[in-house]
Amino acid sequence: MKLDQSHRDALQDVLEWRRDVRNFKPDPIADDRLANLRAAMDLAPSVGNARPWRVVQVQSPDKRAAVIADFEDANAKAAANYSGSKRNAYMKLKLAGLHDAPVHLAVFTDHTPAEGHGLGRQTMPEMLNYSTVAAIHTLWLAARADNIGMGWVSIVNPAKICAILDAPTTWSLTAYLCLGIAETQDDTPLLHRKDWQENTPTRWDTV
Amino acid sequence: MKLDQSHRDALQDVLEWRRDVRNFKPDPIADDRLANLRAAMDLAPSVGNARPWRVVQVQSPDKRAAVIADFEDANAKAAANYSGSKRNAYMKLKLAGLHDAPVHLAVFTDHTPAEGHGLGRQTMPEMLNYSTVAAIHTLWLAARADNIGMGWVSIVNPAKICAILDAPTTWSLTAYLCLGIAETQDDTPLLHRKDWQENTPTRWDTV
Repeated sequence: MKLDQSHRDALQDVLEWRRDVRNFKPDPIADDRLANLRAAMDLAPSVGNARPWRVVQVQSPDKRAAVIADFEDANAKAAANYSGSKRNAYMKLKLAGLHDAPVHLAVFTDHTPAEGHGLGRQTMPEMLNYSTVAAIHTLWLAARADNIGMGWVSIVNPAKICAILDAPTTWSLTAYLCLGIAETQDDTPLLHRKDWQENTPTRWDTV
Repeated sequence: MKLDQSHRDALQDVLEWRRDVRNFKPDPIADDRLANLRAAMDLAPSVGNARPWRVVQVQSPDKRAAVIADFEDANAKAAANYSGSKRNAYMKLKLAGLHDAPVHLAVFTDHTPAEGHGLGRQTMPEMLNYSTVAAIHTLWLAARADNIGMGWVSIVNPAKICAILDAPTTWSLTAYLCLGIAETQDDTPLLHRKDWQENTPTRWDTV
């Protein structure tokens, strides 16, 4: 299968217009579109072909409220680490779209999958987490290609989220994701636009 | 920017035909194609826009030989964890293309980047590693779209690779990658084809 310039151009569009979204319209996402995203995750790379990612779609209002409370707690503590103008700048950032996003996904890593038979992770057991991250990034790109925005919320306490969602003890939280239709489109990261952190180029050395 | 069916079809091709490649042709990869891959990494998501990935292209024959020796040591130890038919099956797998791949990339994570100002990683410091993984997956897809194969070698001792490459103490190894033109094209993982681990569907529950 030889891919051509049209593939490269399309991928470039998807990569350029993928954003970490925090402002969502309330419009629901149809189940068949979510099923497509799930199918895209099936195509993600994983160590030993172990596919250790476990997705939990959070629809319960009580559980969503508990997640939001944990975010607000963690965010307040994070804000306290800054002082002066940086603290003011932090407080002005909107760092999660938990209230508005129609779809909440908690993505866990199973640390004892039967699949893969341990291959490729003896010296680097973190490969299981990394496989889940690759699946999440696959989901992100497939969502963007279908004009669905996604935001990755990392300002939470992983153990707390596991408890809220009754996750098995062999799972750890890799990401808490918000999905929905983005309020606006942008080809530039919000943190660059808001002067928190400008884009920097990839460092690439040769030895 | 509204993406359309042509974007979704193209992304599907890239995802379906991306493989973990262990069999490479000796053909070199031109510098301008590598520059395009580096530019694609600039579009990857990162926590706080910190972009903590650091790429080291390994061209030194001595350093490549040291990496290969470390892989062979780790692979022999991994094989010893299996017994009977599974051990035989493991021994028959080709798990890295280190000897033939024209391009070797070590990808590190900088754990003390000035960029990002700590945002988004107080409760989940592993977000720096995860950002690097997303950049690696971006590289992987951009490579595949340009008909360059990539293999992720995780059967190495990270501290040893850091020592071989004189990495700063604030960096950790996230991945050692082989890139080049793949010997063959496939839409099915080699470990599925070789009966090590069949494909399984993504688990997706609702609460």
